[in-house]
Amino acid sequence: MADLAILAGSGALPVALAAQHPEALVITFEGVAAEVVGCVHRFECLGAVFDHLAAEGVSRVVMAGAMARPPLDPAAFDDTMRALAPRLLAAMQAGDDGLLRFVISLFEERGLSVVGAHELLPALTAAPGWHIGPETVSEEDVAQANRILAALGPLDLGQGVVVAGGLCLGIETLQGTDALLRFVGETPANLRRAPGVLVKRPKPGQDLRVDMPAIGPETLRRAAEAGLAGVVISPGAVLVLDRAALEAEALRLGLFVSARDV
Amino acid sequence: MADLAILAGSGALPVALAAQHPEALVITFEGVAAEVVGCVHRFECLGAVFDHLAAEGVSRVVMAGAMARPPLDPAAFDDTMRALAPRLLAAMQAGDDGLLRFVISLFEERGLSVVGAHELLPALTAAPGWHIGPETVSEEDVAQANRILAALGPLDLGQGVVVAGGLCLGIETLQGTDALLRFVGETPANLRRAPGVLVKRPKPGQDLRVDMPAIGPETLRRAAEAGLAGVVISPGAVLVLDRAALEAEALRLGLFVSARDV
Repeated sequence: MADLAILAGSGALPVALAAQHPEALVITFEGVAAEVVGCVHRFECLGAVFDHLAAEGVSRVVMAGAMARPPLDPAAFDDTMRALAPRLLAAMQAGDDGLLRFVISLFEERGLSVVGAHELLPALTAAPGWHIGPETVSEEDVAQANRILAALGPLDLGQGVVVAGGLCLGIETLQGTDALLRFVGETPANLRRAPGVLVKRPKPGQDLRVDMPAIGPETLRRAAEAGLAGVVISPGAVLVLDRAALEAEALRLGLFVSARDV
Repeated sequence: MADLAILAGSGALPVALAAQHPEALVITFEGVAAEVVGCVHRFECLGAVFDHLAAEGVSRVVMAGAMARPPLDPAAFDDTMRALAPRLLAAMQAGDDGLLRFVISLFEERGLSVVGAHELLPALTAAPGWHIGPETVSEEDVAQANRILAALGPLDLGQGVVVAGGLCLGIETLQGTDALLRFVGETPANLRRAPGVLVKRPKPGQDLRVDMPAIGPETLRRAAEAGLAGVVISPGAVLVLDRAALEAEALRLGLFVSARDV
């Protein structure tokens, strides 16, 4: 019996959750490279997943890690998936957000609650005032980044933004933070007046249970390659992955990482 | 004698202006690759430029074309530039906009009016309703792009934006439209649901006399490389460079170009 089930994708997050909750039922999916060992299911057979959760007495589900979605094979659908197919089709056309809302509703309709990894492991996010590295944060750049994120939030856009010396060098779009940082790194030198800062926050209304912004050591390496001075995140609402390595990387690279509310 | 002076940078625009205004005094600058023949001056000797304009009886000045700014050599400054140096320094620190405002003020302080290329040659911009190529414009993508530009405008950001199937794939920042289109072209295929559209408009308050958004045949080639279906511009406020070639390129590439107000 297990009250909690971890639906585990790739990355360090499911590993941390499973370590903190050794009693939890861990479920992984064929085709998704999970770093944690679990009972392997197929997306095509969600009926079997629901049966498994019911048999274990699970009442809470946490989705953690990236689940790069393999193409679904309709020929392998079980009855449950066949019945869900029309709703699934509609949800997929509503984009990633729509798909996530749909997946949440599937669990909730079966009496399960969907919880966020940050609720189970508050230490996964940063406390207000957390700060690593140099204290030289350009307050004006952070303020301008906050203004840009606030302007874009109502449009469901802009989880991240880079501002350098008052000038916006990039706004995160669908392609994500890594693509943003690569773009910023290609900025011609004559357009740059200051190193700049990446500010990363959830969008208003973002469902943190299934879709949290995250930073990790790799984010810092990319930020350094992009010539930035540091990274600012929202406390309590951005996952800090692999924190020990991230802190070491910040010190090695001379970058700051700071958790601040708007 | 010449009522009008054209301060000519590189590109097709000064050529078109000089052809329409053969009576105008054309001034070019050392180190700037102009395609039009003019009297060559140096940025370091603006005093000589002002004297030249006064001697010709010039009352209106138009700046046209790109003037990639070479490093100024202070040792070569004339008296006028030496006197202006402190203000120039301050203006350069206020960014490109600040520099342009400063240059305009230099002419205006001397009783000259600064006019926009689009005022002299209305045909340089598109009339409302101008449309080339396929009629298949995604109205929803254009509407979403308009909303994004409207949200960013008050922050002096976002002359261009790409939306594809409701999803924003890129927002123009300091690096310009070409960099935006290159970034969009690198979007992984699995994130794209529709070809998308580039919408390009001036920012509110943008001084069109010296800083107009522009598109040309090359913009269309880059838009096609980025997988877009077409380009929407503001009528009357975006330069359409080399229009015959642009129209031919749109037809060749199967892209639409459309002039529409918000």
